[in-house]
Amino acid sequence: MKRLIDRIKEMDSVVCVGIDPNLAKFPDEITQAKLSLKEQLVFFAKEVVDLTLDIAVCYKPQIAYFEQYGLQGMEAYAEVLRYLREKNAFIISDVKRGDIGSTAEAYARAFLEPGADFESDAITINPYMGDDSNGPFYDLAVAYDKGCFVLVKTSNPSSGQFQNQCIGDKTLYTLVAESIIQRDPEAHHVGAVVGATHVEELEALRMMMPKTLFLIPGYGAQGATADFLTAGFGEDGYRGVVNSSRGILYPYELSDLSWREKIRKAALVMRDELNEVRHAL
Amino acid sequence: MKRLIDRIKEMDSVVCVGIDPNLAKFPDEITQAKLSLKEQLVFFAKEVVDLTLDIAVCYKPQIAYFEQYGLQGMEAYAEVLRYLREKNAFIISDVKRGDIGSTAEAYARAFLEPGADFESDAITINPYMGDDSNGPFYDLAVAYDKGCFVLVKTSNPSSGQFQNQCIGDKTLYTLVAESIIQRDPEAHHVGAVVGATHVEELEALRMMMPKTLFLIPGYGAQGATADFLTAGFGEDGYRGVVNSSRGILYPYELSDLSWREKIRKAALVMRDELNEVRHAL
Repeated sequence: MKRLIDRIKEMDSVVCVGIDPNLAKFPDEITQAKLSLKEQLVFFAKEVVDLTLDIAVCYKPQIAYFEQYGLQGMEAYAEVLRYLREKNAFIISDVKRGDIGSTAEAYARAFLEPGADFESDAITINPYMGDDSNGPFYDLAVAYDKGCFVLVKTSNPSSGQFQNQCIGDKTLYTLVAESIIQRDPEAHHVGAVVGATHVEELEALRMMMPKTLFLIPGYGAQGATADFLTAGFGEDGYRGVVNSSRGILYPYELSDLSWREKIRKAALVMRDELNEVRHAL
Repeated sequence: MKRLIDRIKEMDSVVCVGIDPNLAKFPDEITQAKLSLKEQLVFFAKEVVDLTLDIAVCYKPQIAYFEQYGLQGMEAYAEVLRYLREKNAFIISDVKRGDIGSTAEAYARAFLEPGADFESDAITINPYMGDDSNGPFYDLAVAYDKGCFVLVKTSNPSSGQFQNQCIGDKTLYTLVAESIIQRDPEAHHVGAVVGATHVEELEALRMMMPKTLFLIPGYGAQGATADFLTAGFGEDGYRGVVNSSRGILYPYELSDLSWREKIRKAALVMRDELNEVRHAL
């Protein structure tokens, strides 16, 4: 996580660009070109990377949006990751995996092992199955100097259905947060996914986990604005990265610009809005 | 789910063969042949299918064991699924997905849409993010006459860490079970993953969900025996399928047989052990 915090300091940005390719929303320039499905996905993702490389501290490709296109999508996923690694970008593969120990180890190898087709700097993982399910992800993250972000409080409307249930005087997401702190008190390799759309929970979790790096989804298309996020960055302003996917990739409102200009502008506006909040800390 | 229950009746079996390829455990005949990584994975999986097609009511390929081999692994995954579809086998893709609505829909298309590279009859899903995360899986399962199995009480040792926490007078896994019943009271498209390793929970969940089809992991290599499972099959004996992966694929103990004979024998022994329990119901 130190590598990512150093980038936040150097680049003065907390922008995470989510890469969620959706052919139906692609610019005509791409869909009308004579490109295979895979080539379209790769072309668009590379353009997004080139347009935002000086703005984004990290990229979060969402594997579902590649997997929906089958094998060509997976080939595109590997190629986009390879491109990101070439550009020395920090990659968070959003895969939300979780399984019994031996299976979790296979997943961890798929996404964290150096040289793997899907090698990333960090991944997201799901805690429902408990510590022996998350253990192999933690172990390989330590072994390969990588990271994992555990889903704690997600950004979707029904996230509270189970996560906010009270167990004694604590919520389920609080128990998950405690398990993270216990595992990695100095927050070297384990971060937390905490949605921007639930401000009270974000603040409570920041109190509990002052050192932990938060991956914060929910900004932009999902409804949260920059001022929701003060607690997300922590006291020093470096403890959170904020993801936007649709808001950057498909920013329809800025209609007098080309699609490339729109993407770059959306990322710049986001960086500046978030920095205004961070710099006021 | 009716299609799967009909198979259980016709074949008089509740055996689900888990396909978890692990090159390190493959027979020398395969690893020493001049085959690519992908060809080895496909060869072994097809052999397993051919050896058990009259015994297994369904197959549960675990995507992690393919993903760990990168793109070649994913190509093998698609080819194994294609082979299973050709053989008219019932496929449960064990992918344990869960994400916000739009992303969940992309995953659902990847695994449930007719014609997709990874098309399966059913998938496993993770409930941690709540109903709006599971919704797209349910919706596409209904639209395409497919199924999903929600993780309720998993078979791993630390499954209780969060799943067994008490919320008021109910456990978390009970709340998850209630959400399934509410969504699909007649259990047409939604099943439950309930581990064989926790008998009390298996019995309690069967009481709550008499009609629901259970996908029961934990038999064999994970330690549960057939007599643990009485409740799993329900009153009529047709409401559960029991998965074994390592126990069938790599049955080292039957050492005087060839690997093909060992695999077939392990599946037959399992079928007969489980039927003894079911027929005594």
